[in-house]
Amino acid sequence: MHLFYQPDIVSNEAIQRLTEEDSRHALKTLRLNVGDSIAVTDGRGNRYLAAIHSADARRCAFRITDTQTTPPRSFSIRICIAPTKNIDRIEWFIEKAVEIGIERISFFFGQHSERRLLKLERLEKIAVAAMKQSLQSYLPTLDEALPFGEFIKTVTEEQRFIAHLPTNEPPQHLLKRATLSGQYAVLIGPEGDFSEKEIQQAMAAGFRMVTLGPNRLRTETAGLMACHTLNVLNAE
Amino acid sequence: MHLFYQPDIVSNEAIQRLTEEDSRHALKTLRLNVGDSIAVTDGRGNRYLAAIHSADARRCAFRITDTQTTPPRSFSIRICIAPTKNIDRIEWFIEKAVEIGIERISFFFGQHSERRLLKLERLEKIAVAAMKQSLQSYLPTLDEALPFGEFIKTVTEEQRFIAHLPTNEPPQHLLKRATLSGQYAVLIGPEGDFSEKEIQQAMAAGFRMVTLGPNRLRTETAGLMACHTLNVLNAE
Repeated sequence: MHLFYQPDIVSNEAIQRLTEEDSRHALKTLRLNVGDSIAVTDGRGNRYLAAIHSADARRCAFRITDTQTTPPRSFSIRICIAPTKNIDRIEWFIEKAVEIGIERISFFFGQHSERRLLKLERLEKIAVAAMKQSLQSYLPTLDEALPFGEFIKTVTEEQRFIAHLPTNEPPQHLLKRATLSGQYAVLIGPEGDFSEKEIQQAMAAGFRMVTLGPNRLRTETAGLMACHTLNVLNAE
Repeated sequence: MHLFYQPDIVSNEAIQRLTEEDSRHALKTLRLNVGDSIAVTDGRGNRYLAAIHSADARRCAFRITDTQTTPPRSFSIRICIAPTKNIDRIEWFIEKAVEIGIERISFFFGQHSERRLLKLERLEKIAVAAMKQSLQSYLPTLDEALPFGEFIKTVTEEQRFIAHLPTNEPPQHLLKRATLSGQYAVLIGPEGDFSEKEIQQAMAAGFRMVTLGPNRLRTETAGLMACHTLNVLNAE
């Protein structure tokens, strides 16, 4: 069963159309024909079981036969990460985080960030591909990057953490500090780490310092491991 | 402090030499000079604090000033994975698994494996780079790939698991089935998944079926998440 993405499903119409990209993929790459069954998600929890209605190469039409709605998870994970110098590393972080399960990915530029520019368009495509590949019905939100000082004010999740190896006090693992079924936000610093000022700002804003294990991790690895730790904490 | 790798430390000699690759890196890339302090690991738990003794571009000599020995972990993780069609995916699995902590990585060719050839040399380099980058003193073992039937006989860890979504029974998460401080081995199948026969062979060999979460994961993602789940289970 192939999963496609159409954010603009017109709920009261039985005949819908795939995006141009998905139409090409369905008809040219996968060679699907009229009558073949497909699945389409709107990225907001709905999966439509459907059959191809007309093989229009640019606007492939499908008829919805059934709708499955997945409720949101009992917890939500927001990873707030500084874009890496090498964009490939952020791209794979997004692919993997979406695969394992994440609600929101936010970007910020820290004082020690080498990268000062981030284009979301390509990152959005990677998120969509990963959602389809892992057969999920929700597309995580990706936020435009903001300077740290501005950004920190936008984080309102009840359980707020900053991943950082404290120099003095013994480190506490995210798994031990986070509690079940929460709304989580975790800050992951740039290659150059957070500045002292940023750490103070985060503590003042109610973020708690956590570690992700004993080893020094790359930015993108830390982001993915924070996401997975919270998924594992809530695993059934 | 820069960490270098020299597997052939002659324990009773104060003056040792870096490999040709590390000599070049130390002197040409990092521009280190005689007297500069470095750290060198043998990949077997020993880290040597040292000072550059002579700046020989190909065989840079260093004098050991102190030795720190890290005991092995109270648990060991072995991930047994089918090489992916796209080798990049296995390469990043290795980089990330070594970063977060793993003792051994084994490869097997399954009935549904598309890739039938695997060269370890480049993968070893990636493991070494990740060990240095994450400042660890142990280099994980990488095993040559074997056909599944042969391979399965080599797995003797007490806690053996196979990551697979069972069609009938309710899935059980690796986190719930594994117990603390164990010797773990987890089988991760190829893109085409395990064959029925392979699953039967694994069950007969005492492997227990586990899941890594609700989503369909790519091979390399599943491998990394299995490794991280066991690290998190044993997190202090």
